Amino acid sequence: MTDCQEEGPGNATPMELFEKLTAQGDKVRALKTEKADKADIDAAVQLLLKLKVDYKTLTGQDYKAGCPPSNSTPTQDNGPSVTEGEDMVDPWNVSTSSAKGVDYDKLIVRFGSSKIDQELVDRIERVTGQKPHQFLRRGIFFSHRDMHQILDAYENKKSFYLYTGRGPSSEAMHVGHLIPFIFTKWLQDVFDIPLVIQLTDDEKYLWKDLSLEECHRYAVENAKDIIACGFDVNKTFIFSDLDYMGMSPGFYRNVVKVQKHVTFNQVKGIFGFTDSDCIGKISFPAIQAAPSFSTSFPQIFNGRKDVQCLIPCAIDQDPYFRMTRDVAPRIGYPKPALLHSTFFPALQGAQTKMSASDPNSSIFLTDTAKQIKNKINKHAFSGGKDTIEEHRKYGGNAEVDVSFMYLTFSWKMMSSLRRSVRTTPVEPF
Amino acid sequence: MTDCQEEGPGNATPMELFEKLTAQGDKVRALKTEKADKADIDAAVQLLLKLKVDYKTLTGQDYKAGCPPSNSTPTQDNGPSVTEGEDMVDPWNVSTSSAKGVDYDKLIVRFGSSKIDQELVDRIERVTGQKPHQFLRRGIFFSHRDMHQILDAYENKKSFYLYTGRGPSSEAMHVGHLIPFIFTKWLQDVFDIPLVIQLTDDEKYLWKDLSLEECHRYAVENAKDIIACGFDVNKTFIFSDLDYMGMSPGFYRNVVKVQKHVTFNQVKGIFGFTDSDCIGKISFPAIQAAPSFSTSFPQIFNGRKDVQCLIPCAIDQDPYFRMTRDVAPRIGYPKPALLHSTFFPALQGAQTKMSASDPNSSIFLTDTAKQIKNKINKHAFSGGKDTIEEHRKYGGNAEVDVSFMYLTFSWKMMSSLRRSVRTTPVEPF
Repeated sequence: MTDCQEEGPGNATPMELFEKLTAQGDKVRALKTEKADKADIDAAVQLLLKLKVDYKTLTGQDYKAGCPPSNSTPTQDNGPSVTEGEDMVDPWNVSTSSAKGVDYDKLIVRFGSSKIDQELVDRIERVTGQKPHQFLRRGIFFSHRDMHQILDAYENKKSFYLYTGRGPSSEAMHVGHLIPFIFTKWLQDVFDIPLVIQLTDDEKYLWKDLSLEECHRYAVENAKDIIACGFDVNKTFIFSDLDYMGMSPGFYRNVVKVQKHVTFNQVKGIFGFTDSDCIGKISFPAIQAAPSFSTSFPQIFNGRKDVQCLIPCAIDQDPYFRMTRDVAPRIGYPKPALLHSTFFPALQGAQTKMSASDPNSSIFLTDTAKQIKNKINKHAFSGGKDTIEEHRKYGGNAEVDVSFMYLTFSWKMMSSLRRSVRTTPVEPF
Repeated sequence: MTDCQEEGPGNATPMELFEKLTAQGDKVRALKTEKADKADIDAAVQLLLKLKVDYKTLTGQDYKAGCPPSNSTPTQDNGPSVTEGEDMVDPWNVSTSSAKGVDYDKLIVRFGSSKIDQELVDRIERVTGQKPHQFLRRGIFFSHRDMHQILDAYENKKSFYLYTGRGPSSEAMHVGHLIPFIFTKWLQDVFDIPLVIQLTDDEKYLWKDLSLEECHRYAVENAKDIIACGFDVNKTFIFSDLDYMGMSPGFYRNVVKVQKHVTFNQVKGIFGFTDSDCIGKISFPAIQAAPSFSTSFPQIFNGRKDVQCLIPCAIDQDPYFRMTRDVAPRIGYPKPALLHSTFFPALQGAQTKMSASDPNSSIFLTDTAKQIKNKINKHAFSGGKDTIEEHRKYGGNAEVDVSFMYLTFSWKMMSSLRRSVRTTPVEPF
């Protein structure tokens, strides 16, 4: 489970030890059920007890069947992503008690990623010869994994490609969804490389009370908004999982490879799945992992398996790619690199992110100028004081003012995008 | 989970109640973690306690988290398939302590299927106007689900189709593998209907220490043996999962539909999966289920979703289709009907079935006549007495004599098939 893939109990992570213990527990039970030789049972029990001691030593916790270790070693690459401290961040939930939003420095430590510091921003400028995108300069993309490796590759004229995606849970995308796409377009322009965009309509079917047909239709609708971002038409491949899985044996082969190398214990630890979850959810992480490997796209990479992938995404998607990075070397592929963005605050405040399923929290790309104005005036949390008098006297608080936060993301760019999306006729996808 | 799909606690199966309890337990824990209102927590705990009482009443067992109910109501359609009485029968293990082989009458009761009695054999003869196949007359196909429904359909000129399959775990198939195929060919001849044959190369990759390429190659090799059985070339579709998943969006859509409607608790109960199993194994049952639905083959059925499926298979595959029959009405499809065969005994005796991974237990379609003779003489368990004198005095015991058992399966037919397989040149598949 660790990055370095070393074996032996001395280097085991808590999750590895937890799995060994679970397996050993199963073995002891099986031997007892089979009424095996007493000597065999005793030996198995001895090993179980030794593993329990190791586990306590490593984690400081007692082993408890069915309860994976909590993330007591924050620098490892693969701990559970939720419920530590106050902030909750996983692919389905983002919430914090602070009106300033999630504490991203703490998140870097918890997830074991690296901060995008000034040195990295400067190196990007040096290597590409381009002024870094404002999302880099303003800290909106704030965390990474192996970005220096990607820059090394670029300097050495080695190929790599971009992968990002969207879970199509609604007819229209909201402005928060655009952040990774706007930045990905900039990366594609600067590096001039292929880009694949996954629309996880299968995921939305599994998680939401929607039909397959609805999820697929949302994917097609969302693709129009994505196309309007202006990606290089000759180097961009946008696909729905429901369609592409049935069109590419290379993709399915990689899904099965990942599925063979990840256990239920692992996805339980990483994503918090329970025994009551459907088997589709449990195996889905492999489907989001597969586009990280160039052999999923033989039509683009001609079967090359060594083309590294760079994934720009919001930080809540990191658990998928921690898992992917763990599996990659075991199935003979390079680990994907990552660039993580902050969340786009909900209108009601930075305690949570915009959510397409709550229309009043979000500004959609299909909203009219008048609707947007109304939403901002009526719902956007303000850093102002309670009365005009107090406000004049003490001033506002830009740290919690949602309208101000939106401006840091470059409001102008987004509102012009909105217009281009819905005024450019887009052919059915 | 029951056949009749009725709702309400009064009609809940043990597994349904177990799942409700698990979900309610999770809910109580979540409320406590969130420090929710005391009133909310109390209400949730009250419901939990009520469910525990219902569970005890229904099953006679105390609810234990993580331990699904054992099969205390044998006539239901969906209990665990293993470790009751002496016989062990699931898709990966067949064993019994009796030299006469598995007690199939007990298995019918345990699995909740129906015996193929003389009345059904007579009706097949009446409806089809054909003498029933010797596998029916000799009780080798001994159990069924909804076969009368299929005969009704045939009488009313309603369409149906055949589905069977093979897990390609070795270069060559053995004679035991041929039983369902020989019988399926007879069914296709008699009913003149389409047949789909699934080669689960993905399953073998997930379960065995083999590469994807090896499993796929075994699928191609096994397809040659299957083709040699002489199916109607215009009405038979043989496919490898690794290939077909990447060629048919209809197939993947059905896989996802099944995956949404089956929980980990259910596959744990049905197949005995544990938390240490890989997520590929856990979600695989949906892939074996999907060909039971005609929309998985739009090229054959033009998108019709109401064509019923009849599955001839060995009884160890029944757990997959109990699950499939449970899911079918919930996703708007007819339940597949089934015809179950007994196992083909290993050379060493009827305590277990032939296994391709143990060459000395099996007669392969690639074995030469000399190899077969040697295997029978050297390994086939005999019902004879210890010495020639005793044997002459007391006679043999045909009930445990493996060579005699083979003759009941029609040895002549199989040995002639063997020759046809390997003397007819078969084009690459």
